[in-house]
Amino acid sequence: MSLLVVGTTALDSIKTPYAENPRLLGGSASHAAVAASFFTKTHLVGAVGDDFPRKYINLYRKHGLNLDGLQQLAGQTFHWSGEYEVNMNNRQTLDTVLGVIEDFSPTLPAAYTKLPYVLLANIAPNVQGQILDQMKRPKFIVADTMDLWLNIALPSVLKLLKRIDCIALNDSEASQLVGEDNAVAAIPRIHKLGPRYVIVKKGEHGSILSGPRGLFIAPAYPLKKLVDPTGAGDSFVGGLMGYLASQKGNVDKNLRYGIIHGSVTASFCCEDFGLKKTTKVKKADITKRVRELARMVAW
Amino acid sequence: MSLLVVGTTALDSIKTPYAENPRLLGGSASHAAVAASFFTKTHLVGAVGDDFPRKYINLYRKHGLNLDGLQQLAGQTFHWSGEYEVNMNNRQTLDTVLGVIEDFSPTLPAAYTKLPYVLLANIAPNVQGQILDQMKRPKFIVADTMDLWLNIALPSVLKLLKRIDCIALNDSEASQLVGEDNAVAAIPRIHKLGPRYVIVKKGEHGSILSGPRGLFIAPAYPLKKLVDPTGAGDSFVGGLMGYLASQKGNVDKNLRYGIIHGSVTASFCCEDFGLKKTTKVKKADITKRVRELARMVAW
Repeated sequence: MSLLVVGTTALDSIKTPYAENPRLLGGSASHAAVAASFFTKTHLVGAVGDDFPRKYINLYRKHGLNLDGLQQLAGQTFHWSGEYEVNMNNRQTLDTVLGVIEDFSPTLPAAYTKLPYVLLANIAPNVQGQILDQMKRPKFIVADTMDLWLNIALPSVLKLLKRIDCIALNDSEASQLVGEDNAVAAIPRIHKLGPRYVIVKKGEHGSILSGPRGLFIAPAYPLKKLVDPTGAGDSFVGGLMGYLASQKGNVDKNLRYGIIHGSVTASFCCEDFGLKKTTKVKKADITKRVRELARMVAW
Repeated sequence: MSLLVVGTTALDSIKTPYAENPRLLGGSASHAAVAASFFTKTHLVGAVGDDFPRKYINLYRKHGLNLDGLQQLAGQTFHWSGEYEVNMNNRQTLDTVLGVIEDFSPTLPAAYTKLPYVLLANIAPNVQGQILDQMKRPKFIVADTMDLWLNIALPSVLKLLKRIDCIALNDSEASQLVGEDNAVAAIPRIHKLGPRYVIVKKGEHGSILSGPRGLFIAPAYPLKKLVDPTGAGDSFVGGLMGYLASQKGNVDKNLRYGIIHGSVTASFCCEDFGLKKTTKVKKADITKRVRELARMVAW
């Protein structure tokens, strides 16, 4: 089945101690949709400015994305620039230009409103809500968010939480959302805010899924070298939702394996800047790492 | 089969934001030997002063520890006092009194020298080496260490690494040992220093075992409340070695399951101060959590 992905479509300028990469293809929707495209037909909703390079549109097309929901507007593309510290665990935003994303209020193409799987990748929670307003009874809705929205738009986040099946957020964000230091203890309190499934992302330490079947502790694929973790969380939810949409039967049954596919897709994202590595990967590379990971956790 | 555990036997005074606990039973050997005692006959090698409370000796006995290798010397018992910050991830040493441990140079009871499993819990690497000097071809040797010894006794640590089957250390210590930020990349470099097996401990994020069968990514048992993590790493290696010693057949075959048993035993350690919780646990409680953990990682 098909998937809708909404989120930011951006240009990222990323500095690490080792390199500087200006105006890479970035944004939560770019990472998530490309990740999902390995598994299922993916429909991208976003907005870019008139400075958005044609080569990036071509890259989207190469991944078979349906772009009817991608608006090209007059003005600048959303631009994020940031710098990572040596250990890649801390990053600093150097500059943010919202550009066309500032007044982005998506109207979905009619065909999109019936898509069964919906990924609300990281973007303002009111935009995520606007998508849901237009959808006709989707089968499964996952939303991702970030600390920024918890800080400046908490009421909108709380409203959104009542309308989705699953929320994905970092461990520190999970703690922030319910004021509970311990992420494991935070999970039941997040369920009370609405979502039946909660995914706590822990970067290199994997993730925890909580749902009706209890907790699932998922590993990250171990990497010897981390080049740029930007977009890894987006690739994770993208791979997860792409996998779910590609599978028959009950979502609950497929979720754990979906998280493993998301985790592996995210591992490729970290191995080069922006989408450089992810866009070179083949489905078989993902399958191979999923098999390796299965061997690494069996006892 | 039987297990020898050498390490510190100490009194710990532990402060957290919530409570203060003076003169608890502590030390790497106390935690490791009690953890191992759930699975196998365990022989304790250590030194205590004449101030060591009789009730702690009784606690050792309650766990069936063989204490022929525990020396009672004139002077003070090793005393560590420390304070944890709110999130329990950072701790500060407030005071250390070495006491009788300063000149501790163990001579093993004859019966100990033939024990097949040897756990060199955290203590000065030259003391760990002295134990090995006296052992007659043990079947499997694991050593634990800490940043202190990497800082002040690195040559002794490097010498020890050539004599053991397995080294267990924290992720930051693994990085420090070989000067490699990424713990996954540090592992092959640690193998080159000697040990066939390397275990990188990551606290609440579980652990990674590396050996001839490749990597094993082991989960930690998820806890909603962490009261005092002191001794968790020692309980982990203790539970692991106790389990290994209790099993028939090839160590390599049993290692992964052993790590899961160590991980679960360590989870109990964190739920109260010092050894308070661990000494109340029954074997059945451990088995129950091992089963739960198995369900939490299956996909």
